[in-house]
Amino acid sequence: MPSLTATQASALEIYDTTLRDGAQAEDVSFSVEDKLRVAQQLDELGVHFIEGGWPGANPKDIEFFRMVKTIPFKNATIVAFGSTRKASNSVRKDKNLQELLASGTPTITLFGKSWSFQVTDALGIALAKNLELIEDSIHYLRSKDRRVFYDAEHFFDGYKANPDYALQTIRRAIAGGAERVILCDTNGGTMPWEIREICRIVKQECPVPLGIHAHNDSEMAVANSLVAVESGILQVQGTINGIGERCGNANLCSIIPNLQLKMQRPALGNKLTHLKDVSGFVTEIANLMPNKRQPYVGDAAFAHKGGVHIHAVLKNAATYEHIDPAAVGNRRRILVSDYAGRSGLLEKVEAYGISLSKNHAKLQELVETLKERESQGYQFEGAEGSFELLMRKAMGSHRPSFQLLGFRVIVEKKQEHGLLLSEATVMVKVGEVVEHTAAVGAGPVNALDHALRKALEKFYPQLREVKLLDYKVRVLSADKGTESKVRVLIESGDHKDKWGTVGVSENIMEASWQALADSIEYKLLLADR
Amino acid sequence: MPSLTATQASALEIYDTTLRDGAQAEDVSFSVEDKLRVAQQLDELGVHFIEGGWPGANPKDIEFFRMVKTIPFKNATIVAFGSTRKASNSVRKDKNLQELLASGTPTITLFGKSWSFQVTDALGIALAKNLELIEDSIHYLRSKDRRVFYDAEHFFDGYKANPDYALQTIRRAIAGGAERVILCDTNGGTMPWEIREICRIVKQECPVPLGIHAHNDSEMAVANSLVAVESGILQVQGTINGIGERCGNANLCSIIPNLQLKMQRPALGNKLTHLKDVSGFVTEIANLMPNKRQPYVGDAAFAHKGGVHIHAVLKNAATYEHIDPAAVGNRRRILVSDYAGRSGLLEKVEAYGISLSKNHAKLQELVETLKERESQGYQFEGAEGSFELLMRKAMGSHRPSFQLLGFRVIVEKKQEHGLLLSEATVMVKVGEVVEHTAAVGAGPVNALDHALRKALEKFYPQLREVKLLDYKVRVLSADKGTESKVRVLIESGDHKDKWGTVGVSENIMEASWQALADSIEYKLLLADR
Repeated sequence: MPSLTATQASALEIYDTTLRDGAQAEDVSFSVEDKLRVAQQLDELGVHFIEGGWPGANPKDIEFFRMVKTIPFKNATIVAFGSTRKASNSVRKDKNLQELLASGTPTITLFGKSWSFQVTDALGIALAKNLELIEDSIHYLRSKDRRVFYDAEHFFDGYKANPDYALQTIRRAIAGGAERVILCDTNGGTMPWEIREICRIVKQECPVPLGIHAHNDSEMAVANSLVAVESGILQVQGTINGIGERCGNANLCSIIPNLQLKMQRPALGNKLTHLKDVSGFVTEIANLMPNKRQPYVGDAAFAHKGGVHIHAVLKNAATYEHIDPAAVGNRRRILVSDYAGRSGLLEKVEAYGISLSKNHAKLQELVETLKERESQGYQFEGAEGSFELLMRKAMGSHRPSFQLLGFRVIVEKKQEHGLLLSEATVMVKVGEVVEHTAAVGAGPVNALDHALRKALEKFYPQLREVKLLDYKVRVLSADKGTESKVRVLIESGDHKDKWGTVGVSENIMEASWQALADSIEYKLLLADR
Repeated sequence: MPSLTATQASALEIYDTTLRDGAQAEDVSFSVEDKLRVAQQLDELGVHFIEGGWPGANPKDIEFFRMVKTIPFKNATIVAFGSTRKASNSVRKDKNLQELLASGTPTITLFGKSWSFQVTDALGIALAKNLELIEDSIHYLRSKDRRVFYDAEHFFDGYKANPDYALQTIRRAIAGGAERVILCDTNGGTMPWEIREICRIVKQECPVPLGIHAHNDSEMAVANSLVAVESGILQVQGTINGIGERCGNANLCSIIPNLQLKMQRPALGNKLTHLKDVSGFVTEIANLMPNKRQPYVGDAAFAHKGGVHIHAVLKNAATYEHIDPAAVGNRRRILVSDYAGRSGLLEKVEAYGISLSKNHAKLQELVETLKERESQGYQFEGAEGSFELLMRKAMGSHRPSFQLLGFRVIVEKKQEHGLLLSEATVMVKVGEVVEHTAAVGAGPVNALDHALRKALEKFYPQLREVKLLDYKVRVLSADKGTESKVRVLIESGDHKDKWGTVGVSENIMEASWQALADSIEYKLLLADR
């Protein structure tokens, strides 16, 4: 076995548990197919270990381990996770250990109890018995030719309560044949200076390389992981975006760039620029709201809103950016708001090829128009299509492609469990020609979308290329029940561009209409270029 | 002036900048009224200083400082924020300094540049000139009888690049009369061990108490703030929920409980139990999505999903909770999911007064029903009303209060800028009586809500008490444009209860219908108790 010092000098081990601990997050539920797709992305990213699931606790995970064998991985080793045997079972009769072996992974992570209180209160067994379970469970897996990593659950709480017993559990895991001992801050309540001190002591005691598994209940998981690395730990466990039980696990999307860019500890080879993509992929698959304020990979991580900041960043980005956003696959954004003032708006307007001098007579008018819209609840971050149309209208340089004469949307349900019919009629005028048509859809907005395109495609065949990629609804004022204002954001795309548009109204159909109409106008504007 | 050691021994200073730095977050925009309400909440919570705004940069903030004078505060001192004078202005002619004086606050926080690169590149002035601006700006405010706190912007980056110059800026601030020197990690890129080392050095150099102002770009803001406290710093600056420019500021909602519960450093008196309420209030006023995974105050911070965790927590909460949730005004939640298994479901069902033994024949059926609904996109966290109805239906113990014969919703718009008409008709049967009625509303869901109540109030007058408190729409699968599935969550309440209900469909009207119908059924169920 390599000595800790030798391995540490080379590189760290990144151990991802998004598919196991991450799946224990509220609102997260991965299908087997989801898990396979995420595993492939993690492999691409270059992580060293992927904890795929707990076959003894979830039938879904048994299926995952069966399927994952057929996939060739370039960088990652797939790991199965499980617990030490039950006190009442022999190793051979323990369902959990047998499922771990059946999963067929050459590496297994086994967790056991290191906190005496957990042994007596949660497991309800004698302290000596627990030591036995740890050693013989690991020993048994080793005898079946598996590598074993030992997760010392609640290690830091255990060490604080009963250091001798906590250390004994580790010694017995090593005696059983564990190749790594992972110190877990399972409840996430430990402070960085405690982590530092306890890691230091354990490192002196422990002949095998150590790992850290931190939770974020005190908002310390990233700091605790890196403090552990500073204290000489080899393996860092965490999840993409920090998803996990309660407040989540240590966030690999912050840990990895901190290691590579701040501590010069290479962790991923040259794949750091994929980080934002992988983060977005997991958010999407887990069907979570993206956290735009997420460090490094969030959409707001390099977004500048304060006037002073914008002014300085446009001169030299290092003034208000701690790293180059491109290093993690992110990008700079200049936000438009009453904080940004004229220099922000100018930058934004110029990006659309509209040239305006700093003293242009229209500039103040544009700022005013924008402020008024924002106060009504419009938001142009993510709705660049509507922003450009608004600017062009305010400048007097926009010529509308069609005129709405009217629409009607009908949703009808007959009987308690009957199917719904959603139908829309649209009447538009293009030049001097009036077109009146109708369509159905999966819902009222879908029907309106269909009817509008049907009416316009005759005049503008290029609209056939347009696809609606995303439709988001946000209730703006939550205190008025069904009378609240809603904001609809639509993302559209064709074979080469993507654009966002926005609508706001108390009526969701009107808000959707505005965003749909803008999407079509914007496509026609693009086609003119 | 009290010595640092003396003040440190007593208590820390909590300095909130939600209303200034927090307002620079993307998507956040506070009205003057919002700011006044947030200031009152912060005062109730017990923070020592509230940075209200930057009067020299925002006309809105001038109005805030005018209005805030009329409010009596119990704990907090209101502070105005601004920059050192412009190099081209004398102190008397500097608009920014004059606005600070005009704001009338007895305490002013003035920021200046401590990083030589910022002086030469962002300000474009000589290094010596910047030292002059710092000293004479502070001196001038002191001559007008103001207390001055000095924010040393980019201090840590500055110290790493040019320690002598960074220390000189502080010396000159103190020479000018600054009572506190706040070390700012403005770009959020500094690691905790750097913070520790630099704070230690500066503390030796600096005769006035120090403060820390950290940003979260490396996910280190909370750790950095507490490491600074460990190094003897007196004042901690941050924002509620950590909102702020880019990835945000240091999160006071994590810092304060860490100080009080983990470090035994009292910061707020006895108001810690208000923390979750204040966090929720700011989220609401800022109109942001609540972050349920937020440490301490998030809805998921003490939510248990893994079967092992649930089993143990029900025996003894300390097994998987680092603190008592009530200490910060939060509560434990047991989630229902395929991870929770039978013990979680039993706990949940029993909370509704439905008694079921662990071996009840229906238990597996309930678990299956729930799993099926969850796989369709239903989510019962926050929709306890729908959960209870679902359980009662599966148990065969629910008697519906009405039967839907049909509804129709029509939204009509005539002309491009015409008003919309939203109308709904509803036909229901109660016992043997058929009621057919129609109503209008602000939008289609509102119209349907009105029509349904109108039809049923005749039979169930207690429905008049029900108010719709919140209406949320979430698009579930974002990749199908307007054909996506949506989930509608409705919160309703009467004079004594609140309940949530849920609906899922590709058709927003159907999803809304399900949630509305459940809300009414649930109210009638409550009334029966």
